Amino acid sequence: MKRLRTFLALAAVPLFLAACGNLGSSSMSGTSGSNSSGSTQLTGQSSDGDYEGVIKSGHYQTSKSRGVTNSQDSGNTYNLKSFENGMLSVSKKVFSTKKYVFQEGQHLTTSTVQNWLDRKSKSNPTGLNPKSNGSTSSTKRNPIYIQALEEQDYMTQKNNKLHLGGVTVGIAVNSVDYYKKTQYGATYETKITKAAGEAYAKQAANTVLKRLRQKSALKDVPIVIAIYRQASNDSLVGGDFIAYSQNKAGSTSVAKWTAMDEKNYVFPISSGSSSPNSNDSSAFTNFKTEVENFFPNLSGVTAQAHYNGKSLTGMHVNIQTQFYSQTEIISFTQYLQTAAQKYLPSGVPIDITVASTDGTQSFLSRASGAKKFTSHVFNSY
Amino acid sequence: MKRLRTFLALAAVPLFLAACGNLGSSSMSGTSGSNSSGSTQLTGQSSDGDYEGVIKSGHYQTSKSRGVTNSQDSGNTYNLKSFENGMLSVSKKVFSTKKYVFQEGQHLTTSTVQNWLDRKSKSNPTGLNPKSNGSTSSTKRNPIYIQALEEQDYMTQKNNKLHLGGVTVGIAVNSVDYYKKTQYGATYETKITKAAGEAYAKQAANTVLKRLRQKSALKDVPIVIAIYRQASNDSLVGGDFIAYSQNKAGSTSVAKWTAMDEKNYVFPISSGSSSPNSNDSSAFTNFKTEVENFFPNLSGVTAQAHYNGKSLTGMHVNIQTQFYSQTEIISFTQYLQTAAQKYLPSGVPIDITVASTDGTQSFLSRASGAKKFTSHVFNSY
Repeated sequence: MKRLRTFLALAAVPLFLAACGNLGSSSMSGTSGSNSSGSTQLTGQSSDGDYEGVIKSGHYQTSKSRGVTNSQDSGNTYNLKSFENGMLSVSKKVFSTKKYVFQEGQHLTTSTVQNWLDRKSKSNPTGLNPKSNGSTSSTKRNPIYIQALEEQDYMTQKNNKLHLGGVTVGIAVNSVDYYKKTQYGATYETKITKAAGEAYAKQAANTVLKRLRQKSALKDVPIVIAIYRQASNDSLVGGDFIAYSQNKAGSTSVAKWTAMDEKNYVFPISSGSSSPNSNDSSAFTNFKTEVENFFPNLSGVTAQAHYNGKSLTGMHVNIQTQFYSQTEIISFTQYLQTAAQKYLPSGVPIDITVASTDGTQSFLSRASGAKKFTSHVFNSY
Repeated sequence: MKRLRTFLALAAVPLFLAACGNLGSSSMSGTSGSNSSGSTQLTGQSSDGDYEGVIKSGHYQTSKSRGVTNSQDSGNTYNLKSFENGMLSVSKKVFSTKKYVFQEGQHLTTSTVQNWLDRKSKSNPTGLNPKSNGSTSSTKRNPIYIQALEEQDYMTQKNNKLHLGGVTVGIAVNSVDYYKKTQYGATYETKITKAAGEAYAKQAANTVLKRLRQKSALKDVPIVIAIYRQASNDSLVGGDFIAYSQNKAGSTSVAKWTAMDEKNYVFPISSGSSSPNSNDSSAFTNFKTEVENFFPNLSGVTAQAHYNGKSLTGMHVNIQTQFYSQTEIISFTQYLQTAAQKYLPSGVPIDITVASTDGTQSFLSRASGAKKFTSHVFNSY
């Protein structure tokens, strides 16, 4: 059973424009290094908290294993964004954005990652997922534990050249493995407990670390491995990072895992569940009530809330509207600016997106330290 | 032939939550005025250049003729946004955002506007569009000239009450009248020249002004009338305002029209056409070439450009992408921030929206006086 899909075929990127202007202060000198046939530039930094990215000869340096993941029948797209964003967050704990530059993974190729994500078998000895035991029973079969594996490179600058300064590898394990007994057949589920998934991923992480050390470029760099637990397909929010390890240059087995107590919630909290802090969820409910009262035909107000332990660390609010008049959207956005500041939890970064079936109508955001929301209404001439 | 549609039935707005907290500094005292059974608040102002809107008893004061327009078979949605935004721009020339508060039109009801937009006939003596002459030939029939009519109210505050300080009425005339000979039949077109449409609208404006003066509330306020020429349905940009008149309190006929030389263009300019300033269009082409080179699979880079005479006054850039990786979007957005500053015309407000089939991925904007673009990447937990 080949459960793999390459989302984007990038093997033959046409180099149809070889020259590229240097982009202001963030450009690097175009001296041809050992690994570069043209000039290398950086994307520029939008804020201190973000990494710059790498451009080579005018092209973005895309990942060597771009878009590879075990396919899910009706996959949860929240997982993808959440996994990549989370890897950046974990990396920032180790590789400072002031010193390091982000580069998409260049050392694990599509075929390598595809083989690793497949089941171990005679024809695929490097598979990180367990051999099939022949069973198709949801409780007896060996599930696919590892759903995605991604590499991110962190570069340092020295003498106007970029050098690999560290690597972060994310390993995503399933909370539910969706499978079919026959092609095009019904989808069945094997549940994987947090403990079982975590244990399996930690074992796999050791194998991955050993394999990475066999590549000469990765022999002597710090390697961070982070374990992510995917949300189920019906979730309105992505999964959670559960642990990471920081491995010194040269080390071939993980010495220590640091547990991560980060969790995502959807507001309003569904009945029967609870959030880590009831103040936050009731603040959101007050906001929602107030906002739904403003217009006669608002479709829905929901939020994704991110917690570190019991502390709210951020919120994405999503407002679905049916109305379309431009003056209504302008007024509504102004109103949200005031209402959000009044009702929503203070001190954490919050985004609010107002969307209709026509697309995003407006959005508001407040940075971590800021008091007021800034807003933007999408416009058309 | 009834060519009218009410987009949103709002007759029975349920007042399901009567109380509303005052919203900070922008609230008005809740003394019950003659036209208010509850407290009146303002939405708050996001910038000096925007009007605040009116909230009554927690509900946004929606228009009395909300969503009425002559239906178009496959209408151009750009016209709607462009028409309403343009009415705000024209109003700002007359009613200062520092002194006036915006209120959706409260004096023309849905049925009034529907009757006015229909053809004149025995059963509809107030129709502003010409009587049918019986012909269905695209060159011989009387077309529907007036496609939409909208009222905007501008309020002033005195003794903590809002009073009507002025009214803006927008009249939208067709450049192409789309019609059917039989219900569900093919769509035919009658073209209307700019001169013919403008002349017809100016005549109608006189009639409208007289009718408005018959309403006691509108007898003695300044009334601005603005004429808009709709873009055809295949346009990627809305239509243009061609003239406006500023009518003093009490006046019952338009004394003077001020011509408006504002036009919208789509970049890249299609072959055979030209933009008012070739520097702008070639700057955009350079930007487009640079940006399309960055990623292997960008779908399209286009822009709406707004001109006043020969001067560019603003631009909305739209970038369609196919990639979805979050780190790619972050890097791309950082890159755009530098590239846009380098290539796109300076000194004018510019927005850039990056969207995929999944929706808006990121956006950048630069205000009129600013040098740098600010950016936001849409995120998910």
